[in-house]
Amino acid sequence: MSEQIRSDQLCINTLRSLSIDAVEKANSGHPGTPMGAAPTIYSLWQRFLRYDPEEPEWLNRDRFVLSAGHASALLYSLLYLTGVKAASPHYEETNRLAVTLDDLKRFRQAGSRCTGHPEYGWTSGVETTTGPLGQGVAVSTGMAIASQWLAATYNRPGFQLFDHNVYALCSDGDIMEGISNEAASLAGHLKLANLCWIYDDNHITIEGSTDLTFTEDVAARFASYGWNVVRVSDANDLALLTHAYETFLDTHDRPTLIIVRSHIGYGAPHKQDTREAHGEPLGTEEARLAKEFYGCDPDKQFHVPDGVREHFQAESGARGTAAHAAWETLFTNYSGQYPDLADQIDCVRQRKPPAGWDSVLPVFPADATGIATRESSGRVLNAIAEKMPWLLGGAADLAPSTKTELKGEFFGDFQAPKPNGKPRSHYGGRNFHFGLREHAMCAIISGMNLSGLRSYAASFLIFTDYCRAAIRLSAMMEIPVIYIWTHDSISLGEDGPTHQPIEHLASLRAMPGLIVLRPADANEVVEAWRIIMQFTDRPVCLILTRQAVATLDRTTYAPAIGVSRGAYVLADPPDGIPDVLLLSTGSEVSLCVAAYEQLKSEGIKARVISMPSWELFENENQAYRDSVMPPWILARVAIEEASTFGWERYTGSGGCIIGMHSFGVSAVGKVVARHFGFEPAHVVAAAREQIARHALSNQGLSG
Amino acid sequence: MSEQIRSDQLCINTLRSLSIDAVEKANSGHPGTPMGAAPTIYSLWQRFLRYDPEEPEWLNRDRFVLSAGHASALLYSLLYLTGVKAASPHYEETNRLAVTLDDLKRFRQAGSRCTGHPEYGWTSGVETTTGPLGQGVAVSTGMAIASQWLAATYNRPGFQLFDHNVYALCSDGDIMEGISNEAASLAGHLKLANLCWIYDDNHITIEGSTDLTFTEDVAARFASYGWNVVRVSDANDLALLTHAYETFLDTHDRPTLIIVRSHIGYGAPHKQDTREAHGEPLGTEEARLAKEFYGCDPDKQFHVPDGVREHFQAESGARGTAAHAAWETLFTNYSGQYPDLADQIDCVRQRKPPAGWDSVLPVFPADATGIATRESSGRVLNAIAEKMPWLLGGAADLAPSTKTELKGEFFGDFQAPKPNGKPRSHYGGRNFHFGLREHAMCAIISGMNLSGLRSYAASFLIFTDYCRAAIRLSAMMEIPVIYIWTHDSISLGEDGPTHQPIEHLASLRAMPGLIVLRPADANEVVEAWRIIMQFTDRPVCLILTRQAVATLDRTTYAPAIGVSRGAYVLADPPDGIPDVLLLSTGSEVSLCVAAYEQLKSEGIKARVISMPSWELFENENQAYRDSVMPPWILARVAIEEASTFGWERYTGSGGCIIGMHSFGVSAVGKVVARHFGFEPAHVVAAAREQIARHALSNQGLSG
Repeated sequence: MSEQIRSDQLCINTLRSLSIDAVEKANSGHPGTPMGAAPTIYSLWQRFLRYDPEEPEWLNRDRFVLSAGHASALLYSLLYLTGVKAASPHYEETNRLAVTLDDLKRFRQAGSRCTGHPEYGWTSGVETTTGPLGQGVAVSTGMAIASQWLAATYNRPGFQLFDHNVYALCSDGDIMEGISNEAASLAGHLKLANLCWIYDDNHITIEGSTDLTFTEDVAARFASYGWNVVRVSDANDLALLTHAYETFLDTHDRPTLIIVRSHIGYGAPHKQDTREAHGEPLGTEEARLAKEFYGCDPDKQFHVPDGVREHFQAESGARGTAAHAAWETLFTNYSGQYPDLADQIDCVRQRKPPAGWDSVLPVFPADATGIATRESSGRVLNAIAEKMPWLLGGAADLAPSTKTELKGEFFGDFQAPKPNGKPRSHYGGRNFHFGLREHAMCAIISGMNLSGLRSYAASFLIFTDYCRAAIRLSAMMEIPVIYIWTHDSISLGEDGPTHQPIEHLASLRAMPGLIVLRPADANEVVEAWRIIMQFTDRPVCLILTRQAVATLDRTTYAPAIGVSRGAYVLADPPDGIPDVLLLSTGSEVSLCVAAYEQLKSEGIKARVISMPSWELFENENQAYRDSVMPPWILARVAIEEASTFGWERYTGSGGCIIGMHSFGVSAVGKVVARHFGFEPAHVVAAAREQIARHALSNQGLSG
Repeated sequence: MSEQIRSDQLCINTLRSLSIDAVEKANSGHPGTPMGAAPTIYSLWQRFLRYDPEEPEWLNRDRFVLSAGHASALLYSLLYLTGVKAASPHYEETNRLAVTLDDLKRFRQAGSRCTGHPEYGWTSGVETTTGPLGQGVAVSTGMAIASQWLAATYNRPGFQLFDHNVYALCSDGDIMEGISNEAASLAGHLKLANLCWIYDDNHITIEGSTDLTFTEDVAARFASYGWNVVRVSDANDLALLTHAYETFLDTHDRPTLIIVRSHIGYGAPHKQDTREAHGEPLGTEEARLAKEFYGCDPDKQFHVPDGVREHFQAESGARGTAAHAAWETLFTNYSGQYPDLADQIDCVRQRKPPAGWDSVLPVFPADATGIATRESSGRVLNAIAEKMPWLLGGAADLAPSTKTELKGEFFGDFQAPKPNGKPRSHYGGRNFHFGLREHAMCAIISGMNLSGLRSYAASFLIFTDYCRAAIRLSAMMEIPVIYIWTHDSISLGEDGPTHQPIEHLASLRAMPGLIVLRPADANEVVEAWRIIMQFTDRPVCLILTRQAVATLDRTTYAPAIGVSRGAYVLADPPDGIPDVLLLSTGSEVSLCVAAYEQLKSEGIKARVISMPSWELFENENQAYRDSVMPPWILARVAIEEASTFGWERYTGSGGCIIGMHSFGVSAVGKVVARHFGFEPAHVVAAAREQIARHALSNQGLSG
């Protein structure tokens, strides 16, 4: 055995042993995939991945995504042995490793960087949070898209600034989940030659053999998407692995799937190829036997033989560090020659909009007829996009309806360039046609964002049902992706209950870390976008109408700038002492304004509170919140064309909530709204009832 | 042209014209697919579908699912022309057609049976609610499964009671959505030879040509799943269509995909093959021109030429009616020979559990250590399953974790029978291996239920994110499917925030028509199942713990039968006049009981309210609700290891909610729970604070 092979084998077995020990010590976790896939991933990192351990956030690094997030022990062992440095602001200590041996020893314990599944931000070197299967591969597709877009947009002759590849390790579960079908079909269509999925094909799932349920021909399926498919018949054959990765690198017109036949729990004499190896510790004796099989010392835990870390760092580390250094030099020269473009890249790196981005925001004149908020949003989006090239995205086959197309002459389609294709269809295009693939779309824009782009996705609000898992991960990762959801209520009309959202606002508001913004009119849309563009650490759902809503006269009513505080007083009695509060969001704010005017004409003092974002409002201090909703005013009416769920927070027990308690119906929007009581007269009546009720109850208490 | 062909053409063009007119009159809807796909569906119904218009709920009818639900005008026109009778209890009039010409004229208007998208129950002849793409094809897979299971379970020599086929018309959108990948992969694995998807391949999506985003080789993809694929190069060629359907009927070892090349908006001179034909009315002039092209009178709307209805009913109708009559005779004879089996089939038809099903429900003795509710639920499920053969289902590759496997000797796996396969793996098996395909799983169990089976699906609660669209449709359809979601809180521990549900309870509670049940201990689990089995018109989510929870001593605390009312007083001070209410669900009820005992020892009078189901509680009358939560007791503490969102409904503005405001963390479950304050001491402190606060506020008010 040559020295090289001996070193490789020692490194691979150290990865395996560390993973086994981490799971064993935690008495929880997934040892089997790390044991089976260790050579696959070692080979990639050691020989191919262009990655600087000193600077894990280098913009042009190759990305490695562990889509099979349960195999986290393998990734952590790898990060430790490769000596990846901590770079995330989540680390308090400076100059430490992303993952220390102590972290590994505290795998799955509070405070350790080695969490049960990889968490972006918390652990440097983790490119995206994974665990829920299928998410990682779809996110990796977004990263590959970003690499192509950055290259098409910023590379110049002699300046190959962007050319990184994206690799994802996936399991049978990833392949079974529908989201992987969506992402792979799109990746094939887009001919993302910089995307490589590595399928760890171990034939075992939690319920047993994959034969129980999964007998499709995966290679043929990916070929049908237009992928290149390479097979590695034995995960332990480094030469075959090398050949497979080289084939990927040599393929320039399509993505590559490498199918690696492996054995879950490889080397464990009683558990290899069993489902028990998937999600349970091996047990002390089996762990010993596996280490013996590897030729490791069975009595040592968390043991790293001499020379192993050096071997990792000499090859993988040195290669990446050199590449990074060369890149920095290149970028310095580029900055001299293309200062404007370099400024843009700096903004991308720093996740900030360019100077002057907000100089073009429109102001909408008062207009009783008004326009749909999807329409005003489309105009604002287009205005900002002209100033900010890396603001880009698209819809799940609904761009004409969501009004999210970028229409200026600079905005082509993001497509693989074709010899005789449309001139504006290429990898520098900014309009994305995601197809009817909402779930992958949302994960893909996360991947694009993780690579620095300000990406958005759009569809009807109802279809958030298809992509909640991806939305949730973006919230957990605290990344500023933008979701644009239109057709936001029963007022969308004829399409009926299958398309009319009811519980969706509540469901999104209940999700931690997500901002929900439902502007009331065109000028609130402008302010919403102003806020969105300043977010750096949270995703937002912008909720928009299909139907026209009046553009309020902001000389009569309060300015829309109040959106920034989440909720604000839009209309008030002259003395500022209302008898009743009218609370609402989005299109129902106009109903409240109409009711307010009616009540005013009757001498009843109402306050209209526009509440575009509960989350932003709850971030305000108590004094502001009390100034908007004085606690002593108990007469309150909330109105929203959605489930009433959650509104008690603002109405209190004795308030009135006009909302939905059932699914909608198919009819003209205005008919539907009226059918369910969404009209000013109903608000007026409820306001009167509230005032009477609380007057009585105050009397009762004081009497 | 032969008379037959002339009649066929006239019928097809009448379908087209009616669809055009319906959309035109509504000024809303989707004419293009009906125009393109009319011959495809006419050919199926007229020549092949075994369907009795007189009895659209005949158990052994072939099913036709319009997965491309936006093409509803085509289905309605077909139901009208075929003369399908109304059978659903949603119709008040007796002996009417499912769809009348007047309904068609009121397409997409309030009260019409012709809703924007087809709605199960509301319109007889609609086999399942569709519209959100991909759902219908997945539901059809469940129907094909049910047909196979019924056949394997109830057919006897000479009694081919069940042998129906299931057809689904789908669009490119259905094929793009991930759920269709999941369902097709499983259908291929299961070799569902009675399943036929018809892909209306018109090359057009809302954003334009499918070439914009969808260039995969669909035929090759389905072949990779193990499907038979047949191509029809021209939707207008009835001979090719006939041949394709015959090929399906002659294929006995796999499902069939028929790819029919069609033209959206066929016959409209300016709109054929354009995206405008998809979702907008043609306009008066274009509608005229299309009718002229068809040879129809362009000046007549909603015109049905003489002989057309007769032609439909003479061929399709007569065939189905005869088949149905023969079946009823067969069933009568069967009932004589196999009365027990016939009784079961009657229960299936009537959607009721068999007599004595609840005689076997266990009672769990008090036990401070207790067991996980997933574990007690598994035992109860197994007990009921022995009594009720058509209670069946499985998990998305998590059966060992969700404890949903049926373990008795009669319970094999549902698999395609193999010559040398396991003896208990066949189409009569009741354990389903859905694979990592949560979304399809949920739609599939809806399809099984729509065919009479009492089907369940299981996974971790977090993965409801993958399947909300399917859950929602089951709620809208008001069908009693059973979802079993385990690992229901941060207390699942080490898997960390990617697997710890936070917002999921709130998100499910916000959905109309869905019952959420989160039992507190083993005996509440028993009562939960007792309730579930009696549901006939609503789906339920049963929410279960990973970790052990104490089995409460029901001689000390109130009996678990209170579950049936949604919330009940579990523990109370001897005088029944508490100073503070402790509200909780599931595993946190034990925390409240511990706090109650602690408070009691301090002389503080608390009431513990177990609230397994908010929805059931809200169905109770006000008197009962007030007796459980007296409105004058404002000192209230709610505790749940989930988002606090929505709890204000019960705590009021001044109450205390101990819940989650962020994602969880990866650590041992007990450590996580403690970290976020889920311990009795915290409840005790909150109760004291609440009592003090409201005493003060009462003083303030009375002083």
